[in-house]
Amino acid sequence: MTTSTTPNPAVTDAPERVLSSALAERVGEEVLVAGWLHRRRLLKSVAFAIVRDRGGLAQVVIGEPEARDVLEGLAEETVVEVTGVVTANADAPGGVEITGPEITVVSQAEPPPFDLYRPRLRANLPTLLDHAPVALRQPRHRAAFEIAAAATRGFREVLNAKGFTEVSTPKIVAGATESGANVFKLDYFGRPAYLAQSPQFYKQTMVGVFERVFEVGPVFRAEPHDTVRHLAEYTSLDAEFGFIADHRDVAAVLRDTVDGMLSSVADRASAALERLELSVPVVPEELPSIHFSEALELISRDGGVDVTAENDLAPAHERFMGEWARREHGSDFLVVAGYPMSKRPFYTAADPRRPGYSDSFDLLFRGTELVTGGRRLHRYADYLKALAAQGEGPDAYAGYLDAFRHGMPPHGGFAIGLERFVAQLTGAANIREVTLFPRDLHRVAP
Amino acid sequence: MTTSTTPNPAVTDAPERVLSSALAERVGEEVLVAGWLHRRRLLKSVAFAIVRDRGGLAQVVIGEPEARDVLEGLAEETVVEVTGVVTANADAPGGVEITGPEITVVSQAEPPPFDLYRPRLRANLPTLLDHAPVALRQPRHRAAFEIAAAATRGFREVLNAKGFTEVSTPKIVAGATESGANVFKLDYFGRPAYLAQSPQFYKQTMVGVFERVFEVGPVFRAEPHDTVRHLAEYTSLDAEFGFIADHRDVAAVLRDTVDGMLSSVADRASAALERLELSVPVVPEELPSIHFSEALELISRDGGVDVTAENDLAPAHERFMGEWARREHGSDFLVVAGYPMSKRPFYTAADPRRPGYSDSFDLLFRGTELVTGGRRLHRYADYLKALAAQGEGPDAYAGYLDAFRHGMPPHGGFAIGLERFVAQLTGAANIREVTLFPRDLHRVAP
Repeated sequence: MTTSTTPNPAVTDAPERVLSSALAERVGEEVLVAGWLHRRRLLKSVAFAIVRDRGGLAQVVIGEPEARDVLEGLAEETVVEVTGVVTANADAPGGVEITGPEITVVSQAEPPPFDLYRPRLRANLPTLLDHAPVALRQPRHRAAFEIAAAATRGFREVLNAKGFTEVSTPKIVAGATESGANVFKLDYFGRPAYLAQSPQFYKQTMVGVFERVFEVGPVFRAEPHDTVRHLAEYTSLDAEFGFIADHRDVAAVLRDTVDGMLSSVADRASAALERLELSVPVVPEELPSIHFSEALELISRDGGVDVTAENDLAPAHERFMGEWARREHGSDFLVVAGYPMSKRPFYTAADPRRPGYSDSFDLLFRGTELVTGGRRLHRYADYLKALAAQGEGPDAYAGYLDAFRHGMPPHGGFAIGLERFVAQLTGAANIREVTLFPRDLHRVAP
Repeated sequence: MTTSTTPNPAVTDAPERVLSSALAERVGEEVLVAGWLHRRRLLKSVAFAIVRDRGGLAQVVIGEPEARDVLEGLAEETVVEVTGVVTANADAPGGVEITGPEITVVSQAEPPPFDLYRPRLRANLPTLLDHAPVALRQPRHRAAFEIAAAATRGFREVLNAKGFTEVSTPKIVAGATESGANVFKLDYFGRPAYLAQSPQFYKQTMVGVFERVFEVGPVFRAEPHDTVRHLAEYTSLDAEFGFIADHRDVAAVLRDTVDGMLSSVADRASAALERLELSVPVVPEELPSIHFSEALELISRDGGVDVTAENDLAPAHERFMGEWARREHGSDFLVVAGYPMSKRPFYTAADPRRPGYSDSFDLLFRGTELVTGGRRLHRYADYLKALAAQGEGPDAYAGYLDAFRHGMPPHGGFAIGLERFVAQLTGAANIREVTLFPRDLHRVAP
């Protein structure tokens, strides 16, 4: 009986593939690099092929006329294998280049609809999104996604270390989470169902099972607004945990989480940060925090207009508070706690000392809301009251309320929109620039 | 200006909470434990309260009549805080118990619809699923989800270490992945859209961007079959990577991935394994592999019936091959490679040496298919041909095909259904037992 233990000749006959980022350790050796023909530079006396792989770029020097002819015939993005000798050259990217190359075409390519070798993509956003599989290859454009992956790793690491369990909760649900608006409706075996706007209910019930849970998954909003900040589908980083005293316990875990996300970005996406000329912000050991009502007083005093009766912070007010946090606390981050109950969803717990205000908060980053978090109701009777107050009965929430009927501790949590986080970190003008395949009012493909 | 640096008195006045699993290190100390009243045992001379927290169970000894009266009045699943002294007792679970306790009720509870303190839940599956937020608290029932979380961590760790990038691709898509059947249809801002059956197309295009990608996310199948193995929504662990020679490169990465998943389960979910009286299977250094056609020959020879013209393995044949792998290779795992092209989706690459057979495989675990993987087409022209052969034009796939038009390396990957993986590992009779909130033909809540 034959088992496939014989190695594949096509693989073992060739030298092992070396990533462009590892070439500097191989000076003098013959190597094989493989990747995309990122750029051709045909000078008078010499030609260069720049090969892109997941490690970066490798410069290949072509002197022989035959090889130059081959290169001239290849479109950018052709997939090639190059064997040649690694040679030190202080002027080459990374200090090395490949000389005496033999180039083999692995896959032909048509020229891309825009030049990927330029420092920035020169096409409008709709064109880039229409051709996302190609546009995303451009190293600067790709950087945001390397940052997103590193941030998500950091999120998981911090929470795993704190004893959280990762869960996967359903995205097809029987009803809306917070209101009938903004949900996508589905034909579920001939009956209506909906796409989850948030894992809120599920992560809360899971506190009864694991005490501390997190989830990384898609959420869906039938968002009728066509703005640079809204998506119909995005990745939500959700955490929820029990046995807390108040929202400050939530903010403290959030602080460590954001710190871990940014540290992971600094460690693992340093090349991406370099390409974007960015450094990651410092998260203070303790997040500065101000009560919502005090924020309104500050804003009123500064602007000379009394806004203390407002029940939310306008974008300009958030920006003002961001500047205040930077000035007073040297911090890019600010917790604004105690938003009025009228602005919070029904499961929000009130501050027992100031009942009109919630025991919840927003985390502002450089003057824009980054995360919402807080303590939730945990008693069954309180849920019945809160639902009744908004004119709803418990029936539509029966499965959810089961958890509270049978004993739930005080708990709370937060949700971070991954794309918004990356957009704010990278200063992207439009959230679609940092979303692989954005979904919005107008776009459902590719 | 006030910042919330004043610690919360409610937290700091109390001793710090100790998990039940850490009590053995605190003998002689006064501690606070908090959790659910898992069980009350009211004996003649003494009463016990068993408190459940995320660390396990803590036994609390109640001698005083007043405390006993309090305990008698509490339903199971009441959330309590207990302060008392940790006392060694070889007969208690974990060798310690809490004596001289003061019990505070944090949240009242109604008695659960079934006893959570019994070794196994005594209710039929529909009842358990109707009350999932409560049923999942039962430690044996919960074990599968601790295993799922640990397996997923292992999946990510192996692939991150191999240079893979995690991506999040959209779940709302413009068309079906493989065929018009079995997709959920959505009202997308007044137009039709669909739920992704698989991230297949997206992960392939991402090979052009990151070379090596993985995704952990929900997939949706409008599965009309009401079986113990099918779900309408499940978690897919997907990987895809470029610059491979053939399916064996894919199987080798899969081998390491499954090994890492199982190691993570053994390390991180050991208590869950104990509760289920399970140990994890050993993954051989090299997975035994057999060609599909040879498998059919073996089956024909054994059964005395010629099945060599079959184009798939029947469940009984998979079981036979599982036994064969155990007998011949001492392995719970077997790669069956080269399934006929007629049984594989259009993006599958053929074996260049045996064109009617694919360069793809199934991984069987104990005689049941666990994972499907293989090499994909990577040339644009081959996609046009493959689509034409099934009577389709390229238009519906334009965004996907863009990647191939502009240069893609040979690549391949695999997908592991997380719930099936856990079900097979734990021997669950029904996949719904290892799914937090299963979705099927009949169920969309809770």
